Amino acid sequence: MKITVESLWSDIVNIRQQSPLVHNITNYVVMNTTANALLALGASPVMAHAVEEVADMVNIAGALVINIGTLSERWIQAMSRAAMQANQQGVPIILDPVGVGATAYRTTTASELLAAAQPAIIRGNASEISALAQTGAKTKGVDSLESSDAAVASAQQVAAAQQCVVCVSGATDYIVDGKETIRIKNGHSMMPKVTGLGCTASALCGAFAAVNPAPLMAAAHAMAVMGIAGELAAAQADGPGSFQMRFLDALYNLTETEIARRLNAA
Amino acid sequence: MKITVESLWSDIVNIRQQSPLVHNITNYVVMNTTANALLALGASPVMAHAVEEVADMVNIAGALVINIGTLSERWIQAMSRAAMQANQQGVPIILDPVGVGATAYRTTTASELLAAAQPAIIRGNASEISALAQTGAKTKGVDSLESSDAAVASAQQVAAAQQCVVCVSGATDYIVDGKETIRIKNGHSMMPKVTGLGCTASALCGAFAAVNPAPLMAAAHAMAVMGIAGELAAAQADGPGSFQMRFLDALYNLTETEIARRLNAA
Amino acid sequence: MKITVESLWSDIVNIRQQSPLVHNITNYVVMNTTANALLALGASPVMAHAVEEVADMVNIAGALVINIGTLSERWIQAMSRAAMQANQQGVPIILDPVGVGATAYRTTTASELLAAAQPAIIRGNASEISALAQTGAKTKGVDSLESSDAAVASAQQVAAAQQCVVCVSGATDYIVDGKETIRIKNGHSMMPKVTGLGCTASALCGAFAAVNPAPLMAAAHAMAVMGIAGELAAAQADGPGSFQMRFLDALYNLTETEIARRLNAA
Repeated sequence: MKITVESLWSDIVNIRQQSPLVHNITNYVVMNTTANALLALGASPVMAHAVEEVADMVNIAGALVINIGTLSERWIQAMSRAAMQANQQGVPIILDPVGVGATAYRTTTASELLAAAQPAIIRGNASEISALAQTGAKTKGVDSLESSDAAVASAQQVAAAQQCVVCVSGATDYIVDGKETIRIKNGHSMMPKVTGLGCTASALCGAFAAVNPAPLMAAAHAMAVMGIAGELAAAQADGPGSFQMRFLDALYNLTETEIARRLNAA
Repeated sequence: MKITVESLWSDIVNIRQQSPLVHNITNYVVMNTTANALLALGASPVMAHAVEEVADMVNIAGALVINIGTLSERWIQAMSRAAMQANQQGVPIILDPVGVGATAYRTTTASELLAAAQPAIIRGNASEISALAQTGAKTKGVDSLESSDAAVASAQQVAAAQQCVVCVSGATDYIVDGKETIRIKNGHSMMPKVTGLGCTASALCGAFAAVNPAPLMAAAHAMAVMGIAGELAAAQADGPGSFQMRFLDALYNLTETEIARRLNAA
Repeated sequence: MKITVESLWSDIVNIRQQSPLVHNITNYVVMNTTANALLALGASPVMAHAVEEVADMVNIAGALVINIGTLSERWIQAMSRAAMQANQQGVPIILDPVGVGATAYRTTTASELLAAAQPAIIRGNASEISALAQTGAKTKGVDSLESSDAAVASAQQVAAAQQCVVCVSGATDYIVDGKETIRIKNGHSMMPKVTGLGCTASALCGAFAAVNPAPLMAAAHAMAVMGIAGELAAAQADGPGSFQMRFLDALYNLTETEIARRLNAA
């Protein structure tokens, strides 16, 4: 499969028209910013984490985004419950294994979630994806220390094992399904200086997965939009504070012309 | 009662001078942005949700804002405890029933909170207020699907049943007390593209209720300030990112002249 | 000891080069903004609060920041567990006793944390530091009511009793170790109008303590950076919304020249 201006623009139009409900069980750090990114793109975010209500919320959602950035026992139970319901209902799951490899708790939780339900897309940085592949990679808190090359091999391994799409984000984003690899070279070096843009990428994967039944294309479209909005934001930013603001403006104002000018995918 | 430039400005001056403590038990998504909006207006926000301390915090607060956007069991217990203490101490309660109708859990929680204590003001979107009136309205996550007209009827019904003021926010905001209706036509279409501006409206209701003993006026003033600051922000915004920033600046810089120029209430 | 342009700049260069991992167990309101401030300065923030993983995270961290702004039982257990591990591993602890004195719960928790482990730095506003010294000071929610003079005496008392550095932030910041006092007069009057800048100061203390073994200097450097970035932000801000954005940009772009021009320490 190949990502084109037309395939990407078509998904954006659908998100803006359908405004799919994206159910997020995510970390405290990024709840506000990922909700705003989903709104700016055209989707309808909801955050709900109580074991008592996650199944009901999944039932009306177009996608479920699970992000393990700030874990605790009750949240893990809710993630598991929501994930099983999503599989049962055919709602695509996006898993963001934040900081997996940094602590045993995160590594165990990621394994348990993968045992409980099958995600459509796993998105992480190079360290996280390598840790998922159990290559002994080290994660420094929530930031990446691994090379992208090693991570792509890990990603293909995880994709084959979990039968899902895996996205490794970095200077170049790699989106793989166990066989094919899509590379997105959009983005800007200031992006790692804003907290939670990786989490935002996962949230946008949810919006695209809600309108596009092919997870490989949904993930690639999400990463391309992240990168293009990042380039547009950087062009008007004086630092990470103004970048963050311009990024939301760019997502909101994205046009087919701008995408055609900037898309750098292979 | 009628909202005027003078009545609104008088409350703003009082908030800026007295800096009332507004105790928020609110959702994770909006804690930062509602705290900033309260500070920009001139109030003093505090967030505290432990069952062990909410009564102590209510005792020193000028208003209590309860928002059910991201629920869990312990939080519901704290909300209930705080609400009962507020009723006992004569501290006005603002209830924001986020997403009520979307899941049984939220609907049940809203009912339980209303059974435990009497709010001064309930503020929600059309779907939420209709759901509270048990008209069988549907809520899509946390966004509204209902018409404003149907919601006003529901609002009057809820206001009469709960003996409180009900505010339905939307393109036109309706503030009712079971008999009277105040309409605020200020605001801007970009506001639903920023997460948590409804929650911010509820928080500002808290600030106004802390200085104005008439809940109908307090809620109307809060909605007018939201709408006017929204118009000022939109005039300088390129999208929802810059809107959010300009909104806080506008709240902070609000003048009587600007209010006189823009207030659109009836 | 004396804070100089050279001593401060040297620490900033080290933070940018080493990118120390700063483990935060902090309140919900400021998680996003403190993470962004740490990234803008050059550090690597991580938030983790599960009892199950905090010790593992402390083991790979350069500093531990504990902030009691939004407490609950499980979080207190995790703070205690993390603090003990940090003492054992020689990881410096920064304690931010948000709102201590406002409720018995916060006061008790601060005492328990101080009994469980020894912080390198305690940072609070005048009311909080006075409350820690049990002078009967009153805290209004999370904002300060005390005079700075009274607070400096309290700070010296707390520093001597806890054998740590105490920082009282305000129009003038006082950093004391029981004997010496450093005064930082940088800053801007708009800073208290943005939520969580005190919490941000504590987080930056963590970054400086991770590269500088002298807590008195680390705290003074952090406060100077806060103040200077605040002045730079205010010069370009129209209100607290744009201030918040410009503050992150200023932290990110800080130069030795700008520090030399503005540093006001004694």
